Amino acid sequence: MRATVMHAAGDVRIENVPDPKILEPSDAVIRVTRACICGSDLWPYRSMQPSQQGQRMGHEAIGVVEEVGADVHTVKRRDMVVMPFAISDGTCVFCHEGLTTACIHVGFFGNRGTDGAQAEAIRIPYADGTLFALPVGQDEALMPSLLTLADVMGTGHHAAVVAKVSPDKTVAVVGDGAVGLCGVIAAKRLGAERIILLGRHPDRIALAREFGATDVVSERGAEAVERVRQLTAGQGAHAVLECVGHGEAMQTAIEITRPGGAVGRVGVPQEETIPASLPAFFHNITVGGGPAPVRAYIRELLPDILAGKIQPGRVFDRVVNLDGVPQGYRDMNERKSLKVMVQP
Amino acid sequence: MRATVMHAAGDVRIENVPDPKILEPSDAVIRVTRACICGSDLWPYRSMQPSQQGQRMGHEAIGVVEEVGADVHTVKRRDMVVMPFAISDGTCVFCHEGLTTACIHVGFFGNRGTDGAQAEAIRIPYADGTLFALPVGQDEALMPSLLTLADVMGTGHHAAVVAKVSPDKTVAVVGDGAVGLCGVIAAKRLGAERIILLGRHPDRIALAREFGATDVVSERGAEAVERVRQLTAGQGAHAVLECVGHGEAMQTAIEITRPGGAVGRVGVPQEETIPASLPAFFHNITVGGGPAPVRAYIRELLPDILAGKIQPGRVFDRVVNLDGVPQGYRDMNERKSLKVMVQP
Repeated sequence: MRATVMHAAGDVRIENVPDPKILEPSDAVIRVTRACICGSDLWPYRSMQPSQQGQRMGHEAIGVVEEVGADVHTVKRRDMVVMPFAISDGTCVFCHEGLTTACIHVGFFGNRGTDGAQAEAIRIPYADGTLFALPVGQDEALMPSLLTLADVMGTGHHAAVVAKVSPDKTVAVVGDGAVGLCGVIAAKRLGAERIILLGRHPDRIALAREFGATDVVSERGAEAVERVRQLTAGQGAHAVLECVGHGEAMQTAIEITRPGGAVGRVGVPQEETIPASLPAFFHNITVGGGPAPVRAYIRELLPDILAGKIQPGRVFDRVVNLDGVPQGYRDMNERKSLKVMVQP
Repeated sequence: MRATVMHAAGDVRIENVPDPKILEPSDAVIRVTRACICGSDLWPYRSMQPSQQGQRMGHEAIGVVEEVGADVHTVKRRDMVVMPFAISDGTCVFCHEGLTTACIHVGFFGNRGTDGAQAEAIRIPYADGTLFALPVGQDEALMPSLLTLADVMGTGHHAAVVAKVSPDKTVAVVGDGAVGLCGVIAAKRLGAERIILLGRHPDRIALAREFGATDVVSERGAEAVERVRQLTAGQGAHAVLECVGHGEAMQTAIEITRPGGAVGRVGVPQEETIPASLPAFFHNITVGGGPAPVRAYIRELLPDILAGKIQPGRVFDRVVNLDGVPQGYRDMNERKSLKVMVQP
């Protein structure tokens, strides 16, 4: 079959690789009907050291189950499923607590040697715990939004949950990427009436406004902090969603948080330390977040997608086939595209 | 009157200073009956640049109200009061939310030019919001524990609240100073059955065990992390109270936290950044805390002190008069004393 393999920064290839097979009785194999390129795929795209073997890419998919191992019971052949970005067994103490990304068998697709979803098919370890069978057929119109349950919608929701968004709070979202935009959707969905987006791209800002952003701050650094203070009677936002991952964004996130407020960070951190320790401390600001347990959130978010109440699939602004994946990386890296969907 | 003035690192003097007076109608003046030396007083004691004018010291006190301004209504002459370490007006939005240390009129006693409590008397701004009138007379036996309501008991409680201590959770307390020991009391009081103290001083460990610590880890760094993992089935503690403030302690605190758990930090941070950003992120650990709103916690903690259920006053292991204060600093700095009470 054909799959996406990254060999070095900027070097993404479509290659012929062995077909995936059931290796363990808890495995499934799915045919990928939709995958996508993630903002986090751009980190290795900018920095990966050359590798002969390369790394399969892609950690978000919708697919059709082709084969299941003997121990798989919750999904079956022909089921349409969401494949979240993390492997979770569904049975360990962390899975029971809802923190599926701390599963004792956790692994991340398209990372450290695991298979990737930007491919014709993929093997799914712990299929019972990892996959979520969708109660829909091939409803084309819903697919983009359902696909976001694999990562960006659940991740934006996680940021909102960790930042303790609630109806009476002012929310700020740092970053206008796909996750930031899903953070706006999540904040609105959780009842926030005031949602300030920190972003600079006109098309993304326009979409954020449709999703519920009430204010936009396009300044950066100290000027952004000043603008948010102006918008919040000098106090800052109660709940801040950090959807970038760079230290500068984190610094801004902390500095715009109201005393006693919370930052939910979901941008993969690119530095070893969290900045602004002293402002965070003296303002009693909580910093939390991490890889979103999107598998656990599907049950909560799915009904709103099925009912058309939220449309996170609107973050996709380009569709490519596998041959178009390398160009998709280039376009996302150059910010010509917000988020690319892949239809193998 | 006589008061404690720090002029440089290691240079603490008892000096004659002008008597405090009512300057604003919301002021009170109290005669200090008990004050103490705080672990956080040791930071300037180790690092203060020489200053001609010096800094008045002391931010924890019990005293008797001597005089009140025209606008003071909740305390009156002869009341026995607790003076928390922070000034709070009691009326602003943050005070109403219970975050008195984010009061729009906040100030910290014994800091940046404000008056200090290691003195015969002290002026209290916003006396209605800052002071708490005690429903007791001169009950000598209760005074040490009541004095801890000014800082260390409320601060330990804050760490426990922020770390989300609850009966079903394993708690770890990093640091065996007075705040760490009060953290043990707070964790026990909130129902924790398993409380791991990270500390190295035999007398403090013994006291911690009496307060409720069930396990003690005296290793440091990676060895401490390994020990806590052994004690917690490899998972770490749900709730970690960071009661030191150094980066190394914070690193340990994060590394011993169970995925999905929380660190409550109350040790004044001595570095600009929070370490271990990546472990915190990948384990979805929340880091919060800051100056404890001890004024707001008095109402919850006082009944347990009055009933003798908790005895945080046992952290005091030495009593001095004002002349003994410089020696008290030396003893605490050299760890010959855990916490020094001052009876002016």
